[in-house]
Amino acid sequence: MTYTVAILGASGYTGAECVRLIATHPNLRIGALCADRKAGQQMSKVFPHLRHLDLPALQRIEDTDFSGIDLVFAALPHGPSQEIVKALPRDLKVIDLSAGFRLRDSAAFEQWYGQPHAAPELQAEAVYGLTEFYREDIKSARLVAGTGCNAATGQFALRPLIAAGVIDIDDIIVDLKAGASGAGRALKEHLLFAEMFENIKGYSLGSVHRHQAEFDQEFSKLAGRPVEIQFTPHLVPSSRGILITCYLKGDAEQVLRTYHEAYANEPFVQVLPMGEAPMMKDVRGSNFVHIGVVGDRKPGRVTVIAALDNLTKGSSGQALQNANLMLGLEETTGLMLAPIYP
Amino acid sequence: MTYTVAILGASGYTGAECVRLIATHPNLRIGALCADRKAGQQMSKVFPHLRHLDLPALQRIEDTDFSGIDLVFAALPHGPSQEIVKALPRDLKVIDLSAGFRLRDSAAFEQWYGQPHAAPELQAEAVYGLTEFYREDIKSARLVAGTGCNAATGQFALRPLIAAGVIDIDDIIVDLKAGASGAGRALKEHLLFAEMFENIKGYSLGSVHRHQAEFDQEFSKLAGRPVEIQFTPHLVPSSRGILITCYLKGDAEQVLRTYHEAYANEPFVQVLPMGEAPMMKDVRGSNFVHIGVVGDRKPGRVTVIAALDNLTKGSSGQALQNANLMLGLEETTGLMLAPIYP
Amino acid sequence: MTYTVAILGASGYTGAECVRLIATHPNLRIGALCADRKAGQQMSKVFPHLRHLDLPALQRIEDTDFSGIDLVFAALPHGPSQEIVKALPRDLKVIDLSAGFRLRDSAAFEQWYGQPHAAPELQAEAVYGLTEFYREDIKSARLVAGTGCNAATGQFALRPLIAAGVIDIDDIIVDLKAGASGAGRALKEHLLFAEMFENIKGYSLGSVHRHQAEFDQEFSKLAGRPVEIQFTPHLVPSSRGILITCYLKGDAEQVLRTYHEAYANEPFVQVLPMGEAPMMKDVRGSNFVHIGVVGDRKPGRVTVIAALDNLTKGSSGQALQNANLMLGLEETTGLMLAPIYP
Amino acid sequence: MTYTVAILGASGYTGAECVRLIATHPNLRIGALCADRKAGQQMSKVFPHLRHLDLPALQRIEDTDFSGIDLVFAALPHGPSQEIVKALPRDLKVIDLSAGFRLRDSAAFEQWYGQPHAAPELQAEAVYGLTEFYREDIKSARLVAGTGCNAATGQFALRPLIAAGVIDIDDIIVDLKAGASGAGRALKEHLLFAEMFENIKGYSLGSVHRHQAEFDQEFSKLAGRPVEIQFTPHLVPSSRGILITCYLKGDAEQVLRTYHEAYANEPFVQVLPMGEAPMMKDVRGSNFVHIGVVGDRKPGRVTVIAALDNLTKGSSGQALQNANLMLGLEETTGLMLAPIYP
Repeated sequence: MTYTVAILGASGYTGAECVRLIATHPNLRIGALCADRKAGQQMSKVFPHLRHLDLPALQRIEDTDFSGIDLVFAALPHGPSQEIVKALPRDLKVIDLSAGFRLRDSAAFEQWYGQPHAAPELQAEAVYGLTEFYREDIKSARLVAGTGCNAATGQFALRPLIAAGVIDIDDIIVDLKAGASGAGRALKEHLLFAEMFENIKGYSLGSVHRHQAEFDQEFSKLAGRPVEIQFTPHLVPSSRGILITCYLKGDAEQVLRTYHEAYANEPFVQVLPMGEAPMMKDVRGSNFVHIGVVGDRKPGRVTVIAALDNLTKGSSGQALQNANLMLGLEETTGLMLAPIYP
Repeated sequence: MTYTVAILGASGYTGAECVRLIATHPNLRIGALCADRKAGQQMSKVFPHLRHLDLPALQRIEDTDFSGIDLVFAALPHGPSQEIVKALPRDLKVIDLSAGFRLRDSAAFEQWYGQPHAAPELQAEAVYGLTEFYREDIKSARLVAGTGCNAATGQFALRPLIAAGVIDIDDIIVDLKAGASGAGRALKEHLLFAEMFENIKGYSLGSVHRHQAEFDQEFSKLAGRPVEIQFTPHLVPSSRGILITCYLKGDAEQVLRTYHEAYANEPFVQVLPMGEAPMMKDVRGSNFVHIGVVGDRKPGRVTVIAALDNLTKGSSGQALQNANLMLGLEETTGLMLAPIYP
Repeated sequence: MTYTVAILGASGYTGAECVRLIATHPNLRIGALCADRKAGQQMSKVFPHLRHLDLPALQRIEDTDFSGIDLVFAALPHGPSQEIVKALPRDLKVIDLSAGFRLRDSAAFEQWYGQPHAAPELQAEAVYGLTEFYREDIKSARLVAGTGCNAATGQFALRPLIAAGVIDIDDIIVDLKAGASGAGRALKEHLLFAEMFENIKGYSLGSVHRHQAEFDQEFSKLAGRPVEIQFTPHLVPSSRGILITCYLKGDAEQVLRTYHEAYANEPFVQVLPMGEAPMMKDVRGSNFVHIGVVGDRKPGRVTVIAALDNLTKGSSGQALQNANLMLGLEETTGLMLAPIYP
Repeated sequence: MTYTVAILGASGYTGAECVRLIATHPNLRIGALCADRKAGQQMSKVFPHLRHLDLPALQRIEDTDFSGIDLVFAALPHGPSQEIVKALPRDLKVIDLSAGFRLRDSAAFEQWYGQPHAAPELQAEAVYGLTEFYREDIKSARLVAGTGCNAATGQFALRPLIAAGVIDIDDIIVDLKAGASGAGRALKEHLLFAEMFENIKGYSLGSVHRHQAEFDQEFSKLAGRPVEIQFTPHLVPSSRGILITCYLKGDAEQVLRTYHEAYANEPFVQVLPMGEAPMMKDVRGSNFVHIGVVGDRKPGRVTVIAALDNLTKGSSGQALQNANLMLGLEETTGLMLAPIYP
């Protein structure tokens, strides 16, 4: 069975990552690639690494015929995305990779993103796309909101622990290190090579990064009361990858056991043996998450380290995993690519 | 149909790359992983990025039962490799990724590698493994000698031009830039991160790099008389990738036309439009070669740029491509992975 | 006035950094360069970037005449260093950059470093070399123990706050990111370029890094009772630089005010305006420390970020600053080099 | 004796490098820093690594009083620079770091840069700023045109050989590798971290890079007849540094001897022993040039490798060297900083 998909925002990194993954997916074919500013160009011009593929030329969304399309990946900025998804035919399955539909509460969206929600009525039907925790809802969803890549990493580490009540939820610290591609292909001075190279830089300091809104929403829902974690992202000189170091109050053995229970049947989540911790590069280019637990010299303190690839498991791989579910395919189809190392 | 393979030297980069590629190959399974110094360890300890795979533990070659093995990938240093391949059961198909069997003339091996050939009788049957040019021989070979990764890159750029007689073969210059993994996982001071980072370093200057021996052998055979190119490799701060810039005397249009003819039906070789040139990262993690041609301001001079991934098309991907041929499988099976970018 | 110095361990990174800084120091000349394994070689062979300097050849320590030497920089591993410093003429001023003399308690040394202290009698006279806090003792010291580079960074951030009692000393978390050169020029697999590139890796997890011993010693002394911080170092793909993110319980305004008071007259410590944070590269190649304070969304939580260059302010620059004091020179002499950016 | 300088374009990399070098120059003080778009900002905001310096705030050029200024460094784009330098008081000494005044022939400027020369009358008095070869003219010049950074590197390698007639001037090939900062702080997609990282990319292929115009001008003048070299620059993942590999026809011994004669008394040019070659990082952050010569296996062929730091010797260090000469100071003043390694 073959399904036809369209990718909106194909000239960005998450769009290109969708194409890369679909290239070896046995049941999907690309029917349309959209990118407004680069409409008319061949994909081999915009992303020469995809030169070997027989791809449609880039086109404007408004010039696109969606009648033969089964599912759309919308890899657009969150502002336009709400408008554009709203304008798509109502029978299309949609996976939105932006922040446009991640927050259930439209007021929260306005507060964190500084603009009113452009499609609050659609928001109501959107399912939060963290596959391992919303699997059943995603299967029957029409609109799935891909998670923030940082938000995904933090949730893989913290959701089972908060749900099981094995850590102090008033003292959670997440120190995150992320590569450049998470910020997209936008032209910003701090993303220039000469600025990032041989550098590390904290940003959105003081727990004000927008992905914090997802933590607030999801962790508070899990705990049944407000949870506010401390969260500091750092930009590191890597093109891909996220690694988080979580400082928690709890018992290391109990924490590890909780992960083993939560992830026993998850094909993409690897829980490491006690005392081992993943490296950022262990998952590069793949849909895997690695999680490790280490007890601290100080009793009652535990460190959790987790790693994923922001473009794969953190966005486009997650999107494809959700697409598999929405289309009735085996969840892991096309996603078992091994990480590339070194 | 499933074939069982063994990988000798599984704790090195080319060995691990074989595992990565086989992980999503539909017709191969790994029956044994050998690594003498790390025998007894799990692969997940030596290469944690392969943690999700169900792999046999590392073992010594002498403890390995090859009776159920169809084909061996020998990813060992060239010295031991000649001895070890000689000792393998005679009915085993073998792909040797070292320099042990690349040079048809055992005297040339001794001259370039500073030691006598340990298996000259086997050398006689070894087929040089540059798939696109030795395809038919490889199909029926028992022992295939994988090429040097630098040597492969140079040959993709130069073989068609020398064969067609469209360039001056007495004035060929190849300036090569290669990432660190080509040197393997050996502990050498110049391969330390702090040494290579923010650095570029020429080595084996004066056209004395060992892969030069492959150029001598292959180009002289093609031309029917001795050909000696000038070849300078440089170590660049990348983990993977080779990019060569070739300075040639010839006509750009004729050169491009020659490539189009030579590579018209090659699934892994992409010839770019006139005036465009590949970047090193365009092929990362994939089995593709990209080649571009640019005419120089100076009449009669042409620049050719070619790129491949040293660990994939330059060694382990090439090996798998040959394995497919030797086992009667479709040549591209398991090798159509798209490059990972950025 | 010119003083003559010798550098022991001149073939390592901290030794070479001493040479770099002395090269433009107006009052110091290099009388001897020692490096046992490379004795007999020219420095231009071992470190070609120093080629323009007229330097003595490398020699064995036992072949060195110390009679004309005023001060020795010992940039050796901690084990040999204790023995070698003990054997030096008693009238020589010595700055030891190893961990050999950092811990006042020889039992603590044995516990953390796994070997008995080889010169406990010398330990008694050693002054801990964190200049800004031991300035007067250093002026009259004969033997100064350079601090750990990680330990220095943490202390610049935490000492004033612990001393002033403005943070909860039972809940201090330091997440550290450090470049490769802190591990020296030793041949270790995890320090290879291909391993570190595009990677981040936590190590000595669970607050068991050896520099923790310096934190224990210094912070407990300051607080008048045992203080145990949580400390996780990470190896990041940079050749130089340390950046720490400290998660503290306290008031941001009070924390910033405390820094302003503590560092008002310190030429090398730059306190940033409220809400700004340093980047790792802001201090590269220089003797400066940058410290920034950001209040968290969560009341009573504050994040402190500090950065220094491990080879300069973290070791060889600190050593030169101490040498200036020990020799009666102006403390900043030769050390006002601006950071190199980008 | 202290001279006061102004820096126009202080918010760019070459402007900031001027500030870095002047910071420890004993005879220069900074009277004004100009940057139109960032006028009103503190330098510590634009370049936090310069935070420790007491610098004037950035201001507009038209708001600047040049009455107390002795010399101006104009680190602006070439278009505006011609206009702005023309408008400066006639008695000001000026060092222009742009391409605005490098080409003696205004028609050549128009041809290579695609716009008419805005100050052809000033062009007549401009002296080409390659210090080692125009030293006497620079001493008495009012307006000095800093060279292109790539052009400087190529000339250090080739000028002595062309002048001495020891190489075939019709067959000169220069393969250049350059870090990102040579392209400045401009926002361009190919300069983003995620694009450049783990990548190598040739550009201005076919010998059409604008610095080629300087090669044409200078080499043809030296040879007394037109000389056209082949020149291919590559962008490499480094923030600083240029390394060139030159493929020449000549005798290695004679080439090396020629360098020794040409550079015997040059404080900043280091000629390496026969067979050794510099690495890019050997000169980072310094005003030194390293040159090495290797004979090729092929008789009559020789490879020359040269390295310099594009921001220092390739632009701002060169500018300061020229400023020293123009102000009657010792040429090396403030410029003997040792390279930073690793």
